[in-house]
Order: sequence, then C-alpha cells, then structure tokens
Amino acid sequence: MSTGPHCPKVVIVGGGFGGLYAAKGLSNEAVAVTLIDRKNHHTFQPLLYQVALGVLSPGEIASSLRRILQPARNLHTILGEVVGIDVAARNVQLNDGAVVAYDYLILAAGARHAYFGHDEWEADAPGLKTIEDAVEIRSRLLLAFERAEQKAQLTGRDEPLSFAVIGGGPTGVELAGAIADLARLALAKDFKAIDTMQARVCLYEGASRILGTYSEDSSRKAAEQLEQLGVEVCTDSLVRAVEPGRIRVGDEWIATDVTIWATGVAPSPLAKTLGVATDRSGRVPIEQDLSVLGHREVFVIGDMAALVDANGRPVPGLAAAALQQGQQAARNILNDLQRRPREPFRYVDRGSMATIGHHRAVAEFGRWHLSGIPAWLLWSVVHVFLLIGFRNRIAVMLQWIWAYATRNGSSPLITDFQRTEAKRAFPATRRL
Amino acid sequence: MSTGPHCPKVVIVGGGFGGLYAAKGLSNEAVAVTLIDRKNHHTFQPLLYQVALGVLSPGEIASSLRRILQPARNLHTILGEVVGIDVAARNVQLNDGAVVAYDYLILAAGARHAYFGHDEWEADAPGLKTIEDAVEIRSRLLLAFERAEQKAQLTGRDEPLSFAVIGGGPTGVELAGAIADLARLALAKDFKAIDTMQARVCLYEGASRILGTYSEDSSRKAAEQLEQLGVEVCTDSLVRAVEPGRIRVGDEWIATDVTIWATGVAPSPLAKTLGVATDRSGRVPIEQDLSVLGHREVFVIGDMAALVDANGRPVPGLAAAALQQGQQAARNILNDLQRRPREPFRYVDRGSMATIGHHRAVAEFGRWHLSGIPAWLLWSVVHVFLLIGFRNRIAVMLQWIWAYATRNGSSPLITDFQRTEAKRAFPATRRL
Repeated sequence: MSTGPHCPKVVIVGGGFGGLYAAKGLSNEAVAVTLIDRKNHHTFQPLLYQVALGVLSPGEIASSLRRILQPARNLHTILGEVVGIDVAARNVQLNDGAVVAYDYLILAAGARHAYFGHDEWEADAPGLKTIEDAVEIRSRLLLAFERAEQKAQLTGRDEPLSFAVIGGGPTGVELAGAIADLARLALAKDFKAIDTMQARVCLYEGASRILGTYSEDSSRKAAEQLEQLGVEVCTDSLVRAVEPGRIRVGDEWIATDVTIWATGVAPSPLAKTLGVATDRSGRVPIEQDLSVLGHREVFVIGDMAALVDANGRPVPGLAAAALQQGQQAARNILNDLQRRPREPFRYVDRGSMATIGHHRAVAEFGRWHLSGIPAWLLWSVVHVFLLIGFRNRIAVMLQWIWAYATRNGSSPLITDFQRTEAKRAFPATRRL
Repeated sequence: MSTGPHCPKVVIVGGGFGGLYAAKGLSNEAVAVTLIDRKNHHTFQPLLYQVALGVLSPGEIASSLRRILQPARNLHTILGEVVGIDVAARNVQLNDGAVVAYDYLILAAGARHAYFGHDEWEADAPGLKTIEDAVEIRSRLLLAFERAEQKAQLTGRDEPLSFAVIGGGPTGVELAGAIADLARLALAKDFKAIDTMQARVCLYEGASRILGTYSEDSSRKAAEQLEQLGVEVCTDSLVRAVEPGRIRVGDEWIATDVTIWATGVAPSPLAKTLGVATDRSGRVPIEQDLSVLGHREVFVIGDMAALVDANGRPVPGLAAAALQQGQQAARNILNDLQRRPREPFRYVDRGSMATIGHHRAVAEFGRWHLSGIPAWLLWSVVHVFLLIGFRNRIAVMLQWIWAYATRNGSSPLITDFQRTEAKRAFPATRRL
C-alpha cells in the first residue's frame, strides 16, 4: 500500500468536493493516501435537486470513488464509516472496529441536515444531501400527485396540492422553482383528473429576503422569477413546527402534502471527536493553513471547518470553497514533505448561482450580476464542467436537452424502497 | 372518465408487456380503459440484469406509465394494488379499499419469484423481477468486492470471491455472464488489493443442460461461451438449500458471497382470486380467445395464463408472448363491441436470445441459430427497438456504446436503502 518504507500515510475522511480534490492533489506524490467514505460514490450535490424532481437519474450525478481515484497508484479507497478519531495516537476508528493509522489526516466529512433540536421533524420534512434523500423526495412528490388523482376520480373534486419548501437559500430556491416546473409543465398532461397547475408551492424563509448570502438585487430578481413560476415566496415566515401533513408558520398551521427541509445544516458529528472546541454551529475552527491549532497534522476542510481566511473574509459553506480547501490542504502536506513553508488559504470567489425553474437563474460574481436565461445558460455550463466524469457530463447535457425540448423530466419513478411508505392509507372506501 | 353514457369500462391489471400492449390496442377506441399497477412505471425486464450489474441506471429501462398512456384520451392510470377480484359483481378491489367496476377485465399481473415453499430463502438469494431487486443485487455485488478489498488490506491475503447464480435459464445465463464481466473487466482496475479476476462465478442448473427451452446446439454454445468468460457451468446440480453465505448443491455445502435466484417463477397470487382452478404452476387455464371459461369478459394473459394456442403449442412465458396476447385481448374486446367473432390466439415465435457477457449471445429463430458477436448485435438491435420510449432507446444505446468502449459499467452505485445491510459485520478488530 505504501510507496516506500517511510512513506507518509494520509487519511482523508469524506469523498465530497473537499476530500476528492485533496486526494487528487496528492495523486502520484510520495504519500500513501487512503480515502474513507460511507458511500462508494461521490455525489454531485448541486444537481441533487434535479434527481429529487425526476429530471436526472442518480447514476448521472454520482461517480464511483474507486473509478475516479483508480488511475493514481498511491490512492486507495475504503468503504467504511469513521466513528472516532484519536488525535494522540494518530488513528481513526471505523464502525466495524478497524483502526486506520495516519501521519496526516484530512477531515472532510461534510454536513447533514439539522432540525434545531427537533430530529423528529426529519420524517415529515426530509432534507436533500444524498441520493437516498433525493429518491425519497421524488417518491413523495409523485405519490402526492397520484393520491390527488385518485381522490379526484372518486369525488369529482380536485383539491389542489400544497408543497412546502422550508429555507430560502439556494437549495430551497432551486427546489421550489423545480417543483413548480414539475406541476405546471412536466406533469400537466400526465394527470387527467386533476389540474396540476393549481398546485401551491410555498417557499418559507425566516429572514426578510431569500438568498440572504446574495446581493439584494439578486434576491429580488430571484423572488420575482419564482413568483412568475407560481411559487409563493413567504419571507419573515419562520417555521416553528413540523407535523405529518402540516407545518406551523408563526402562529398559523398550514396544511401541506409534501414538506421539504432546505435549511439548518450541521457539520458532521466527527467534528466533536477531535477533542477541540467547536463553534456555535458545531464547526471546527482552523488555522490559516487549514490545520487544527495544536495538531498541525490534522486538517479540517469544507462544511466542517470555520475559518476567516487570509483575505479577512469568512469562508462560505460552498462546494467551491471545499474544493479549494482540499487542494490547499494537499499542497500544504506536500510543502511539509518538501520542507517548504505552508501557505495560508485564500478563498477565490468564483461566484454564486441558483436556478429558478428550468430556464432561469440568478448568478453573481463580485459586483457583476446576471439573471434570467443568460444566468441559466452560464449555470448550466459551469455545472456540467464541474461534474466529475466525462460520461456524466455527456449524459447530463443530453438529459437537459431532452428535458428542455420536451418539457418532460426523464426519471419520474416511484421506487418502493422501505423508506417510502408506498402504500399509504387512503380516506375511506370508495367506488370508482 | 368515460367517453359516452354506455361506454364499456375495461380494467387492466398490470403495466408490464401484456397490460401495456392491451392498453395501446384500445387507445382512442370507444371504451374507457383504466390500467392499475402497483408501480408508476413500466419496467423493461429483459434489461434488468444490466441494472443489477451497474451497466444501466434504473431510469433508463423504466418509463412512467402515465407518460406512455397519456396521449390517448380514453386511457387512465391508477397507482394501486389489486388485492381481490369479484367476478360475479364484476369489480376489483384495491388495497386501500377502493372498488373499481369493469365490463371487461384483462388480468396481466405477471409473476414473482417462487422458492419452492422456502420463502425464507429470498433474503439470501434475491430474484430479479423489479428495479428494487436489481438495485439490491447491485449493492450486494459491489459490497462483496468492497469487503474483499478491505480483508486483503488487513491480512495481505486475497481470498477470491464466490458468486452463485441459481437457475440456468436465460436470466441466469445473462446474470452469470455479466457478473464474470464485472469481475474481469469493469472492476479489475478499481480494486487494488484484490485480484478480481480470481472471482468464481458458478451457474447452477438442476437439469442436464442450461437454456433448456432452447435447442441443444444453443445450449452447448452458451455453455462454451460462458466458460470462456470464466463462468463454471454446473448442470445436474440441484440447489437444495440456501443459507446466509452458503448453498447446498446435492449433498455438498458451497460457500458463496452473493447468491442470486434465477429460477422458480410463480404467477401473481391474483390468479387464485378468480375463483377458477389453476394449474400446477398456479396459472389460470384460458380459452383460445384468451378469456376464462365461463367468464367471457375476463381475460388473463402473460405469465399468469396457461394456454395451448391454436397452433397446438403451449405459449411460452416470454415477454413477446405477453405482448402479443395483450394485443389479441384488445382486439377481441373490440370484436365484441363491433359484433364480430373473436379470434383465437396464435403465438408468433419471434425467436429467443440470451446474452453471454458483454459481446456474445445465442439467438434462435425456428431452425435458424446464431451465436457469438453476430447474435449479440442482433440482440442489441431488437432490445433497443422493444424499449418503450425514444429517450430510453437513445440513452441505452449511448450507455452501451460507452460501456463497450471503456469496458466500464456506468452506474456501479451502492445506495444505502434499508433493504441493503450496508454496514455488515466485519471479522474482528484489525489495524490497517
């Protein structure tokens, strides 16, 4: 496994953007790298919402980690879950009892959804971080339409569906716009007893504007474009409770058919196993060289880390930041080995974008703002470029061309895995 | 929903080849058709094994039933499970209590796997009938390689994997060949600590030759081509028991890492709810016009039906037969409505084919036999043609070109749904 008797061992926990680009930065160098992930694939999270809406298939946005890292002889992959880190002994413990020793550790285990102390909300308001999440949401959305269709066939009454997306950040905005698209375009003809155009899609944001990390101009344009799609944008609307079939916004209970959680992100609990104090969000404060104070051999990057970079700005929780930190962590390890000083991290803002429905977006890059169709074209090009794997790029481009030309999503499957209650109780006996 | 006050209602149970082609045969006719299926998609079963091997994605071989049937105004779809049929009252009961009345019923609910009275074997030897089955098998196959990789990294010992496919019919042959391909080609470079070429793939068939419904010539060629791929073809090898990690063949217990069930098919239990006697296999004997004796308004087709057709030959349990029966049942309903005599069913043998690995096959059409690469090319063309949906055809053709050019499967994802024990117990604590 090592490439020499004294070859330093680097263990990378997490195969997302941070871990993957760290591994790539160390490929074919004089280190033995072991990347550990709970899943055997890297998921391109920015496009997960399209799997949730049945536009893309899981396989199109996921790539086998082994396949990606295979070409470099010094990169190895372990499918396993890290449950503990012993910084004194310099090893990580896996859930099956195995212990993996390291000389350098790069912790890049990302984040999961957090429910502000109400983990019981997750069953009724799933988040969107993994492929399994996306498939679950897809099933719930489609089942909602199926149930409404049957109810309409029974009673002749078409009670419009109600979808709630909680959280007005980029994920929530993209989901809300895509659900509106699903109802108004993709499914409009498929369901004959109901009028899917009447479906309500509501985006709930506790602050005074959506896309709070974007400029006010982009926030406003995004809200306008969402409203043109038929999304109700509800700002200053903090969701206080989630129950089956309804949510409480302020003092009001609102009935929903499907609720999706797109807010409240918490770093991986591994952050707490390092034995260092975490910040209020649970993130690990790191030094300018991305290492942990007092443990120069331990790097923490991506959504697990909190840093004000060498430019004086807090590093945002974006894929681009994780990617750049992964590259920098790799460079700093090589700096050590080559007895060069480490470099401080400086985040290079490559802009932010969020899609609104199937052909609009907002994009900003410094002072430069774009919206509408031009922004969407830019978004498409950038995201295809960032996708890992040539085959995935071709496949996704073709799917988008197809979806755009036909207004149809391509993979609206309800798959009956046990996470989905595919057979839900219908009201009363009825004759059709 | 009806197209006129006295418009006959046709209920079709099942959206496979039989039900789907029956619905198509009635599209835009003077009947109101309701197709009921437990799933919202039609699955192209002949290519399921490619999903199980990670070559194709589920979305590429499944099509939304609503989308397929949407263009015809008189076709409606219900997502639901039929649990009972009242032939006297002429209605079907769904699992949610709804009752759907019919003037004509076409029962096309297909078949599931049967374990010869040992349903407990299913957990250790899954079959391959649905997308969920395929994803489960895919996960098990990939996890087996992952576990072997870790074991090899621990002990330095590479213990070759062992895969067992039970049943030497076309499904078993295709699975066995594809697993051999997976081990020898697609995954060979991905796993660095193990030699995947050493994986054993064994095909167990109780009779004296595989592909028993094919000619002896095709059986022999298939066995030869399988052996060239590295598959051990074990005929006269009846599997008598299945347990976790091993199977009993004859008197011998054989250790297996993954076991797949490709034999023992039983018709849908709905066959028993008709109130007519079923044959030894559980199939419903039908008349020449595809209806049930004594109930001219009830048709049973596909894998649920037993018929010796007007040519004097038993109709085989093939997709092509179900498809043709679906079309014939539709025609006979229209014959009734137009006061014409019903026509007897005559199965038109369009030949049989089975792939062996990624570029070989056997194909026969009457006396005409083909094998090797020419057979595989023919198989590819026919199956792409039979796929439902233009988009799926393009997607699958592109995936095959990619997989053939790169020797790589495209979707080797392990997805952590609850059906997969993604975290299996590893032996002992170890240090890597």
